[in-house]
Amino acid sequence: MRIAHFEWSPSGRLKLLDQTLLPARERWIEVGSVDALIEAIRSLRVRGAPAIGITAAMGLVAALRSITAGPRSAFLALIERCAGEIRAARPTAVNLGWAMDRMVRRANATTGGAPQILAALEAEAQAIWDEDETACAKIAEAGQELLKRAGTGAQGRGGTVNVLTHCNTGFLATGGIGTALGIVHLAAERGKALHVWVDETRPLLQGSRLTAWELLRAKIPHTVIPDGAAASLMARQQVDLVLVGADRVARNGDVANKLGTYPLALAARRHGVPFYAVAPSSSFDPACATGDAIAIEERDAGELTVPAGSAVYNPAFDVTPADLITAYVTERGIVKPPFGP
Amino acid sequence: MRIAHFEWSPSGRLKLLDQTLLPARERWIEVGSVDALIEAIRSLRVRGAPAIGITAAMGLVAALRSITAGPRSAFLALIERCAGEIRAARPTAVNLGWAMDRMVRRANATTGGAPQILAALEAEAQAIWDEDETACAKIAEAGQELLKRAGTGAQGRGGTVNVLTHCNTGFLATGGIGTALGIVHLAAERGKALHVWVDETRPLLQGSRLTAWELLRAKIPHTVIPDGAAASLMARQQVDLVLVGADRVARNGDVANKLGTYPLALAARRHGVPFYAVAPSSSFDPACATGDAIAIEERDAGELTVPAGSAVYNPAFDVTPADLITAYVTERGIVKPPFGP
Repeated sequence: MRIAHFEWSPSGRLKLLDQTLLPARERWIEVGSVDALIEAIRSLRVRGAPAIGITAAMGLVAALRSITAGPRSAFLALIERCAGEIRAARPTAVNLGWAMDRMVRRANATTGGAPQILAALEAEAQAIWDEDETACAKIAEAGQELLKRAGTGAQGRGGTVNVLTHCNTGFLATGGIGTALGIVHLAAERGKALHVWVDETRPLLQGSRLTAWELLRAKIPHTVIPDGAAASLMARQQVDLVLVGADRVARNGDVANKLGTYPLALAARRHGVPFYAVAPSSSFDPACATGDAIAIEERDAGELTVPAGSAVYNPAFDVTPADLITAYVTERGIVKPPFGP
Repeated sequence: MRIAHFEWSPSGRLKLLDQTLLPARERWIEVGSVDALIEAIRSLRVRGAPAIGITAAMGLVAALRSITAGPRSAFLALIERCAGEIRAARPTAVNLGWAMDRMVRRANATTGGAPQILAALEAEAQAIWDEDETACAKIAEAGQELLKRAGTGAQGRGGTVNVLTHCNTGFLATGGIGTALGIVHLAAERGKALHVWVDETRPLLQGSRLTAWELLRAKIPHTVIPDGAAASLMARQQVDLVLVGADRVARNGDVANKLGTYPLALAARRHGVPFYAVAPSSSFDPACATGDAIAIEERDAGELTVPAGSAVYNPAFDVTPADLITAYVTERGIVKPPFGP
């Protein structure tokens, strides 16, 4: 089973499945300008750190196609400016800036005029996608070991492994099978008996809207819970392991991920439940020493419903300290910090 | 400032402010039968452990008024049957069963026929209410000490105390000023500089709907947060203390309270933030040895929005182990377990 949620249109624009409307509606939108791309990223029509990186690169190419290119130097300056605007769309996930850096470097390293540069950038965007798809496949493979251990351990009742996950880290978050949820998808494809506890993930419900939708499509047994129920499930030994994604991993192993990840990690530690952060190398930030250096995006108050006059604080992410994370699953295998520059 | 949310109607029926419609609408309903009372309790038109106990007693009286009473023995049997049905409306909070026990005992202890018994039950219901109002006032007084300590401690920046609370434990949850939130209300009335972090409290949003509404009315500065943000606020020393209510306190000090309390307590422990459970004696259950013995109500899947086909697990409460609770605030002062029978 493969769920496509972005692609090139025949005319070379970026097509996106609008994730804000899922699961009620499956509507595709076309993106052909930097402004439209930034709007799509900011309003989470596309989200998930790896998917943002890939689609930002594709969207940059789509936007550049519609611009009458001047001389090489002006085109390179334009690319740099567009990339700068796009990378500022969301601050926390490192993959967006990382993808823009790659695009700018590739443009500068390409000889010839605008047509040659544009062709090179299209190839670079496709490479970012292809590499992510491969990374997801390798991550999913590496993660099977964790499910095998869980299935044979004291908590593996009847061979069914109970995974708890947060937000959405599957097809819809990446250019491939997913990161944390990719491990689940691959195991299910191979016939492993699984059940997934799905945090609904307030306030935008990426769990109950997106992860549940993916798991339904894949026919994987799952149960949606309010985020606050995870700790009690662990207390009753209903969770074998926790798999979450990562939007930015610092060199010391601190992980910025969707708000609600940190309290999950605290509960997992209390109850001895293994807690894994799952992400491709593109989510590791060698320039970032610890979680303290990670900018946390604050989102609009309107995402919460409050009486007129009440203030709202709505951070999109939190930071889980490295000491609470059992290990990290990347395309290079199961690894531990420090992560060198 | 006093917020009334239930009262006797002129004809002796129970009037309730329908809390399911707050803050958008302030609609009062009248309850005159056991079925209507059970519906109001089950659908949370009235909620909060102390408020449920009081209004259940008042509602029982209102229902009995409309019944043509037979001989004394038949009337007593009827009262026992009605009380049994009412006490089964919600299982977790002890106050409901405690109030029904008081009503049945009072009926049996009253001499005379149905009119005498009905008058005694009306007095008993009023006593339950009055005692709760008094208990709330004493609790609020006892709790001032906690705010004083917090305000002078290392985290009391500029004299403003940052309280974090969960669910609703104010006027709307009791027959008086409140339990945990009552401490805040009283301090604010006395001019204490306070700011309240209000957990929105998924899935039914008692925090962002009810607590925010109360704090707005009382002009107390507050900020609503997604439940998952509390741990990060504590990590950044933005929380001086946590005040929560309790639906049932076991003899060993384990506390059943609104889902999401347990992860808050874990975060508070990690960051050395004092964590207090605040409740009247009627919420302490001498028959319950530990939290393991507390029945946790599972509510309807429809309270969460999921794709058709996804399962939901929606417990209304969780149990916080006593070792995570700094102390308990009751009308008798600040106390610690064990709590004798």
